[in-house]
Amino acid sequence: MRYLRYGPRGLEKPGLLDGEGRIRDLSGLVRDIGGVTLSQLPAPDPATLPLVEGTPRLGVPVAGVGKIVCVGLNYSDHAAETGMAEPEEPILFMKATSALCGPDDTVRLPRGATKGDWEVELGIVIGKRAQYVSEEDALSHVAGYTIVNDVSERAFQIERGGTWTKGKSCDTFAPVGPWLVTPEEVGDPQDLRLSLDLNGVRMQSGTTAKMIFGAAQVISYISQMMTLHPGDIIATGTPPGVGMGLTPPRYLREGDVMELAIEKLGRQRQQVVQD
Amino acid sequence: MRYLRYGPRGLEKPGLLDGEGRIRDLSGLVRDIGGVTLSQLPAPDPATLPLVEGTPRLGVPVAGVGKIVCVGLNYSDHAAETGMAEPEEPILFMKATSALCGPDDTVRLPRGATKGDWEVELGIVIGKRAQYVSEEDALSHVAGYTIVNDVSERAFQIERGGTWTKGKSCDTFAPVGPWLVTPEEVGDPQDLRLSLDLNGVRMQSGTTAKMIFGAAQVISYISQMMTLHPGDIIATGTPPGVGMGLTPPRYLREGDVMELAIEKLGRQRQQVVQD
Repeated sequence: MRYLRYGPRGLEKPGLLDGEGRIRDLSGLVRDIGGVTLSQLPAPDPATLPLVEGTPRLGVPVAGVGKIVCVGLNYSDHAAETGMAEPEEPILFMKATSALCGPDDTVRLPRGATKGDWEVELGIVIGKRAQYVSEEDALSHVAGYTIVNDVSERAFQIERGGTWTKGKSCDTFAPVGPWLVTPEEVGDPQDLRLSLDLNGVRMQSGTTAKMIFGAAQVISYISQMMTLHPGDIIATGTPPGVGMGLTPPRYLREGDVMELAIEKLGRQRQQVVQD
Repeated sequence: MRYLRYGPRGLEKPGLLDGEGRIRDLSGLVRDIGGVTLSQLPAPDPATLPLVEGTPRLGVPVAGVGKIVCVGLNYSDHAAETGMAEPEEPILFMKATSALCGPDDTVRLPRGATKGDWEVELGIVIGKRAQYVSEEDALSHVAGYTIVNDVSERAFQIERGGTWTKGKSCDTFAPVGPWLVTPEEVGDPQDLRLSLDLNGVRMQSGTTAKMIFGAAQVISYISQMMTLHPGDIIATGTPPGVGMGLTPPRYLREGDVMELAIEKLGRQRQQVVQD
């Protein structure tokens, strides 16, 4: 099943995608997609649901996200391009939930930003509370998968002192969606091709098979340190091809268009503006 | 005014403290203390409100905290004790909101934790949306002040790779409260004595006058990078005397009792258990 939330920001309604890629209104069956409902989302025959006309804006496909935990340098070839050693255990950092936006919303570079960058990532949405879970049991805590663009400002992230928070948490730096795709539809999360195009030119290309720490390992690892709650999102790291890794580096500018895709999880498209 | 939230976890009701230090029930006037209500909290004569009997548990004094932004090494003498240079601009990191707990709740060290530590901090609660605000205007965005214990696990924080997130975001690592004290009652936020006792022995002692970056600077600085929303909490750093800075270091153990106090903001008291 492919769940989504559609409508103006802050007023999104729950929906799902039917076999023809049309939006069906789910609001008659569930108030929203988020929190405890994630472990028991209704799965009706889409044809029985009202068809949504037009092409409404899509929001983050899960409401009430409590935290966004990100894994850094989780593809061996991306670690190499940043000049950093391959980590021995998952590198974690957080993005503020105030950075969340819909999959096709405008990405705004904050005032003073000069090194905006892109990172296509497989996102895991937690469906069931996870504390001290084993790797074997980890995937049973997943509500579904989605795309996350871990938008970053490299000067804020690296040159301004302290941890990566500053360059990772700016408003609109966490486009999520378009859909929350359930595990049975995704199959093996370690066998998904992912890509990012900038202005129509392929910049990132990879497969989740190259993740150093896979989805199950990452969930288990984080759950040893903090409880994961329904609606929490894990961004699992990015393959090679970020702007910072190019010679010379290529950073985001007003008017740029990023297009992200992950196999089975759909596409995102964001235009860039400078605040 | 000193606002608070009392009752079992997840079922807290809004209240305020009267002149005799007794809890008055505010639930007849406001549904909760949090979000947009923070900019327009009712300020009735406490004597007109129902008296709450007994000594109920206190919760986090603000509901729906969106993010906890922390400032690291923000007291010059604490920077010295950790062996790190005084920062040129505020060092930021985040604590997961799933780490929040009441001011007197039990602090649980996660499995495998061996280097639990304490940090008494002045907490700022945002009352009004703050984006690109000047230092001059910054304090007008404050709903009030409170105490935060920035509980840390130093091995997770420093020895496990990556940023500080792992050692800062464990469940119960963010006791907040007892009260949300409004700015007119606090006066100058840079003139508050603060302390932390471990098992009755004074470990930390300081004054917010020693903060490298004051409350107004910190709010303005963060707001250049991400929007601060009502209910967001900023933990502004800790004075000297953390366990890691002692010779030999002294880390938290099951049965330890931490008692925190900040002038005008009340006291916290947490017992430590090991998961």
